[in-house]
Amino acid sequence: MKLCILGAGNVATHLATAFVGVGHDVTVWNRNEAGLDMVNSLHNCHSTTRLDFLPKDADVYLISVRDDALNDIAEALRGVLGRTDAIIAHTAGSVALHVLETRFTHCGVLYPMQTFSKTKPLDYSAIPFFIEGKGGAERVLWRLAESVSANVYVADSHQRKTLHIASVFACNFVNHCFAISERILSEANVPFRVMLPLIQETIAKVQIMSPSQGQTGPAVREDHTIMDEHIRMLCDKPIEQEIYKLLSQNIINYK
Amino acid sequence: MKLCILGAGNVATHLATAFVGVGHDVTVWNRNEAGLDMVNSLHNCHSTTRLDFLPKDADVYLISVRDDALNDIAEALRGVLGRTDAIIAHTAGSVALHVLETRFTHCGVLYPMQTFSKTKPLDYSAIPFFIEGKGGAERVLWRLAESVSANVYVADSHQRKTLHIASVFACNFVNHCFAISERILSEANVPFRVMLPLIQETIAKVQIMSPSQGQTGPAVREDHTIMDEHIRMLCDKPIEQEIYKLLSQNIINYK
Repeated sequence: MKLCILGAGNVATHLATAFVGVGHDVTVWNRNEAGLDMVNSLHNCHSTTRLDFLPKDADVYLISVRDDALNDIAEALRGVLGRTDAIIAHTAGSVALHVLETRFTHCGVLYPMQTFSKTKPLDYSAIPFFIEGKGGAERVLWRLAESVSANVYVADSHQRKTLHIASVFACNFVNHCFAISERILSEANVPFRVMLPLIQETIAKVQIMSPSQGQTGPAVREDHTIMDEHIRMLCDKPIEQEIYKLLSQNIINYK
Repeated sequence: MKLCILGAGNVATHLATAFVGVGHDVTVWNRNEAGLDMVNSLHNCHSTTRLDFLPKDADVYLISVRDDALNDIAEALRGVLGRTDAIIAHTAGSVALHVLETRFTHCGVLYPMQTFSKTKPLDYSAIPFFIEGKGGAERVLWRLAESVSANVYVADSHQRKTLHIASVFACNFVNHCFAISERILSEANVPFRVMLPLIQETIAKVQIMSPSQGQTGPAVREDHTIMDEHIRMLCDKPIEQEIYKLLSQNIINYK
């Protein structure tokens, strides 16, 4: 397929890499040249900082920008495109299809549920893609996702928002718990890597049992002596202390 | 070595399994017979529900009970033992050596920093053990830990408490974030297993970069439109909503 990707952030850069990798003809647009560094290092990937220089005959235009910039970029794209039969899709978990529906007949969403950091290579075949589409877009976006991944699903805007918020807990907040752990350890001059076997086992467990079954620690044992001591130890970190109290309370509530 | 383990919870049961596995002579005591089921299924592991039936000539007595029961069990053990040259150690992350020091000359701590569920087998060689000891106990406990694991460290009571609180964030709270994610998805009839590729990548990243560098998601992008919508979507879950707000705020604070 002939694709245009609008944006050059973490998601856009990885999608460009994935799609170029399976032989699609990809052009990436970004507002400034700096963001295009990684894209420009890809073989057979075109790039531009001029929206009006994008090919007019692409099969799919994929808008992958900050959620709060999506509306403006969609409007600008409509301005330069001058055709109504192109498929326009965005990649955002929490943005309804509506933002494109008001402007384009063939519109959709291609949401890759993964954590993307520019410098960390990924196995694209494992990424779950969630597709939504109107006016024939669903079928084309499905084919596009299937060209890189074995895990393609249809999900409407409400389901996708639910997936997104669930992924904030299962990924972004999990990573932040690691970051808090790292900070606590660094103050005692202990390197974070001592936590890795524990983290690996935590994740190995969740592959074979429900997280609610696999819960361990002072909160699920309702060991208030330890919890009170931990809360005292966090007295100079009021937000982390409050996080400790709330998560512990909620672990007890989930029993 | 000849070992007695007092307790038959998750930690005690796994330590018995590990120590029997490398050829130590292990007897496990537990208050009631029911808790000894797993231990009794081990080859060459003895068990009893009578504290006064424990061998009097063991090299190490390892107390692995709820933190708030530790004091009582230590006192009862002193009553039945009738010798002062035995090494008595506990396995608790957040309990100071002091609780044993007042009663026993040769005392210590052997803290295995891992998440233990009785039914999930473990690779004991990867578990970090943190050792503290007085009166020759440190050397013996080090040898004991080294007989099963390649990761043995010395840590005093303060360092161990720091490790414990850091592990609550890196393991227990991480698992609870998975449990919240599971609950949110279940209400939309989405199975939690769709999250597994995302979770695997989250953990793969933390092996190669600092969690503070690897942070992704709406909070680190300061995308308040999305965060506000997620907070609205959690209106019927006030504690999860508060957790969302606090963790997001702290992700921004850590930038």
